[in-house]
Amino acid sequence: MTSSEPRSFRVGLLGHGTVGSAFATLLESRAPQIELTTGLRPEITGVLTRSRGTFEEIVEGSDLVVEVIGGVEPAREYVLRAMQAGRHVVTANKQLLSQHGEELWAAARDHGVQLRFEAAVAGVVPVIRVLQESLAAAHVERVHGIVNGTTNYILSEMARMGASYESALADAQRLGYAEADPTDDVTGKDAAAKMAILARLAFDTPVHLDQVRYEGIEHITADDMEYAQELGLGLKLIGTAERIDGGLSVRVHPAFLYNGHPLASVTGPFNAVTIESPDITEITMSGPGAGGPQTASAVLGDVISAMIPPASTPEPSQRLEIVEDVVSAFYLHLEVADRPGVLAQVAQILGMQGASIKSVVQKGLGENARLVMVVHPILESRLRAAVALIGQLEFLRSPPRAIRVIEEEFV
Amino acid sequence: MTSSEPRSFRVGLLGHGTVGSAFATLLESRAPQIELTTGLRPEITGVLTRSRGTFEEIVEGSDLVVEVIGGVEPAREYVLRAMQAGRHVVTANKQLLSQHGEELWAAARDHGVQLRFEAAVAGVVPVIRVLQESLAAAHVERVHGIVNGTTNYILSEMARMGASYESALADAQRLGYAEADPTDDVTGKDAAAKMAILARLAFDTPVHLDQVRYEGIEHITADDMEYAQELGLGLKLIGTAERIDGGLSVRVHPAFLYNGHPLASVTGPFNAVTIESPDITEITMSGPGAGGPQTASAVLGDVISAMIPPASTPEPSQRLEIVEDVVSAFYLHLEVADRPGVLAQVAQILGMQGASIKSVVQKGLGENARLVMVVHPILESRLRAAVALIGQLEFLRSPPRAIRVIEEEFV
Repeated sequence: MTSSEPRSFRVGLLGHGTVGSAFATLLESRAPQIELTTGLRPEITGVLTRSRGTFEEIVEGSDLVVEVIGGVEPAREYVLRAMQAGRHVVTANKQLLSQHGEELWAAARDHGVQLRFEAAVAGVVPVIRVLQESLAAAHVERVHGIVNGTTNYILSEMARMGASYESALADAQRLGYAEADPTDDVTGKDAAAKMAILARLAFDTPVHLDQVRYEGIEHITADDMEYAQELGLGLKLIGTAERIDGGLSVRVHPAFLYNGHPLASVTGPFNAVTIESPDITEITMSGPGAGGPQTASAVLGDVISAMIPPASTPEPSQRLEIVEDVVSAFYLHLEVADRPGVLAQVAQILGMQGASIKSVVQKGLGENARLVMVVHPILESRLRAAVALIGQLEFLRSPPRAIRVIEEEFV
Repeated sequence: MTSSEPRSFRVGLLGHGTVGSAFATLLESRAPQIELTTGLRPEITGVLTRSRGTFEEIVEGSDLVVEVIGGVEPAREYVLRAMQAGRHVVTANKQLLSQHGEELWAAARDHGVQLRFEAAVAGVVPVIRVLQESLAAAHVERVHGIVNGTTNYILSEMARMGASYESALADAQRLGYAEADPTDDVTGKDAAAKMAILARLAFDTPVHLDQVRYEGIEHITADDMEYAQELGLGLKLIGTAERIDGGLSVRVHPAFLYNGHPLASVTGPFNAVTIESPDITEITMSGPGAGGPQTASAVLGDVISAMIPPASTPEPSQRLEIVEDVVSAFYLHLEVADRPGVLAQVAQILGMQGASIKSVVQKGLGENARLVMVVHPILESRLRAAVALIGQLEFLRSPPRAIRVIEEEFV
């Protein structure tokens, strides 16, 4: 860009609740980086709430409209009118799309605008984009997974703590994972709306929320969870859309999974979706499925995608220095002569370099003795220096072997 | 489309090896569906091999060029010239992009064409698209994962069978997971090229293959795997790109992971990549990382993406019938009076509906007795009928509880 005044990309925001306000904050904080990347400076040029703004003015003054009001009306009318006025629309509204998707997608096609809705399903997990683009013409056999973070959190807590449904729900509400009125989540209706949208995209056939059978988790008891655990089973609320006998089944219900199942390890408010197709075997994607900042991030990804040409690789906006020496834990394997003082000498060398031993075992005896140890995280250069010194010890029977260990915490 | 003669989308194919021929086959088989979805009929209008075709004619007669020759030259020259001629390019060439990416991306920007390369990293796992689009302006802290299917297969077999490196490599070659010359894979160079590309996109900074430190798996011994297993550790070849002290570290090396780590369960020729950012917590994507058909599918996804407008939701091309009754295994929980013949009566009702019991345990005694069982897969309507009948038995103390069980095999 040679102009000193960057061009602006004007975003009209409909709704300013949890997601709307998180989006406004995120957009403002990321605007400088977005401008570096796209050459356009995004700004919110109008906000519609119950008490301020008018829809007409906001559309008039925007290049793209973000709808995060939720619910069917007036969201439906606003989204339609914004597209009729030639504006791209980004929405997080699964109920709207699962009930009026065909009307809205037709309007987008008719008016040559983009209607993006990544945030409507599985939060930041980019399943919409992958179905629409990467797998646009793939023959999908099945899409299934965990698409409601609230119920996954509740079920995870019931399993972990032996808690009752009621007590786990109360915890989820206190932590912000469940709303004051959790009906849509716990009955499976929220997940059903998401599965309707996924099925529409995966199978290229109209699917309305009314066609999705759903059951919730309200009747699950702590003792069912307990007995099932004895059988090696864990409970999840699973959404499935799959071809059966030339037709399509779309459904949401609680299901027990054996502990080795890939979805069994998805815990807390996370979502995960697996897409199966003979062309690709399968793809699984997981990440946080709920939360204002995460949903806002998915909305922002859609906004930026509407700003840039497809498949853009912009000029680098920075030049980060490459760091050569990093910190890592290590596994060390030493073939040693089994005699007194060996471990003491090794430990002394490690200690001089600042390496501390986390655990050590001696394997074998006499001529066959080995020391196998794990060393706490240390700069690689220092560990290498210690290994070089250890390699010179006369009781070493072969060069020391060092392999990194990734020790970090994980969920 | 009202015209009876569909418009054609002409694809020029450079290279006809494993991926090229798999792509040609896949394109032909998917062409009718792609035409339904996009209104354009894709066809391969020219193929360049050592013995046939000329580059100039192929570019002249194409709307988009697919480069699957591999290696740096003449691929680099062809990709540049195709873009200079105004053609979109799709490539699977990680060595090319990790060494000459900036030149090629600049040419794409200068000529207003798309340069797509999903197949260059992690096969069908859509990590390129997600970094370029969903996370275009996110502040990424770290990208890490398993990006080489050959070495992951070899390490999985060494762990599973106690096999030596040499024997596991020979198996991988026999099964087509490793090439006759496996050097690029087993030394880590292939993974290093992929990490250079991911780091470039995630951190918006130039990264050349030469800046990636890499170590391979050639020196890993079966006894290291065995000792580490005793410590609860499994070995993976891990690629990492992360911010450190305001700079960037990009590296590939074998690393031990504790068994609960999300990447520890990624086995065989699968790839998995996790992207961490404070905006989104993290996204993990996994799927087959290698293989001709899978790579071809990733190439085809890019080709179709170049054919359609961004964020397209085309009109449905079919109307699948919604199937209501599906087959599932079930968990049954019955609160019963503890007296002779109870289980026999329950089993008889289940048997009459065609349901067979996989396992059953009795919990508690006397007034507190429960039967907890798992029933083999059966049509849900028949299981429901059996449960209705069981619910009428006089020794039932409360309504039966039935919860689905997902029994399927998984990798």
